[in-house]
Amino acid sequence: MATIGVMLSGCGVLDGSEIHEATLTLYFLNKAGAKVVCLAPEMDVEAVNHATKAPSGQKRNVRVEAARLARGPVADAAEVRAADLDGLILPGGFGAAKNLCDFAINGAKGTVFPSVAALIRAMHAAGKPIGAICIAPAVLALALGEFFPELTIGDDPGTAQALEVAGARHVVRAVDEIQVDAKNNLVTTPAYMLGPGIADIAKGIEKLVDAVLARVKAA
Amino acid sequence: MATIGVMLSGCGVLDGSEIHEATLTLYFLNKAGAKVVCLAPEMDVEAVNHATKAPSGQKRNVRVEAARLARGPVADAAEVRAADLDGLILPGGFGAAKNLCDFAINGAKGTVFPSVAALIRAMHAAGKPIGAICIAPAVLALALGEFFPELTIGDDPGTAQALEVAGARHVVRAVDEIQVDAKNNLVTTPAYMLGPGIADIAKGIEKLVDAVLARVKAA
Repeated sequence: MATIGVMLSGCGVLDGSEIHEATLTLYFLNKAGAKVVCLAPEMDVEAVNHATKAPSGQKRNVRVEAARLARGPVADAAEVRAADLDGLILPGGFGAAKNLCDFAINGAKGTVFPSVAALIRAMHAAGKPIGAICIAPAVLALALGEFFPELTIGDDPGTAQALEVAGARHVVRAVDEIQVDAKNNLVTTPAYMLGPGIADIAKGIEKLVDAVLARVKAA
Repeated sequence: MATIGVMLSGCGVLDGSEIHEATLTLYFLNKAGAKVVCLAPEMDVEAVNHATKAPSGQKRNVRVEAARLARGPVADAAEVRAADLDGLILPGGFGAAKNLCDFAINGAKGTVFPSVAALIRAMHAAGKPIGAICIAPAVLALALGEFFPELTIGDDPGTAQALEVAGARHVVRAVDEIQVDAKNNLVTTPAYMLGPGIADIAKGIEKLVDAVLARVKAA
């Protein structure tokens, strides 16, 4: 049975993990018989009111909020080693672009949060598969740009350009498709970067989960 | 195209809607081509820390938190009429038993939050189907006890007994099964009252969604 890390960044599209993408990832992993380890970086962020889209002034802890999605405690990304996992998947949401890294603010000049960068680079160095959904491929572009990863990000030209400046090659894929970068063992899908509906993004996410698990099996 | 209300109660199993149950409900509704209207009661509650399970002392608004699940504004249950909907589904989570009603504290002697009770009773009076997942059938027992509804609640004897004291007949069903109360047009499934995994509860929730939509079509 494969053990797959799911890197969360909070709970809610505007300040954390996109809930539908994260839940569908957990669903398809469980359906395929994988063991899941939920993890997140240890940090506080300002919550965004999801009804008004305005900053709320209220501080919340990313790992504590991620426990809502996991239905229980979430490991600190700093405490998880590549040796503990057979694969890693990063759901999207602004949390991926604001908490896991600062791509949302600094674009191609952004950096990845230390515990997240360390785990991604260790997984990549060990040749283990990494999946990234929606905006989360931006984290891979910043962490692994020197290896010229091939990634999806949807169809926004500015976002795609920032990815390419960071060293990635952007590949256009439909919402029900994935991109496999065999050299770097990466699998990506655009999900809500394209949408429109949860049943649409589920198609790409199921393919991504299956491809990550197939690459674990093939290793 | 059927319009189905999804009654949320926050965002997180310990103080709101159970995220997996709510997300899977939205997923299967979207997959089946239904139009979804997310709604929730207007109220503030104390947030529970989902990592420690301890009360956090932090107030949050149920409708604002539910917007995380809905990816946008959630209607006030007081503003939605039975005429606006073809069916209604209540996902579980402690929010169903603590926010939609006070079953978690007062059991069979509990009452349902006024806007939630009014909509459930109006849907029932109009002969429109209502689905309830996990602990949410307790809301139906309190709102519709005088009509002797047949409901699932899992396998905890104390909880089942409280449902029966409220007027319901408890029916034992497996996690991948549903109970249809044809007389009252209610569909229920135990979900995480039994678990264990998200792929297990998905089977019952998909059947519940399909049964609610079939009953809309047959009306």
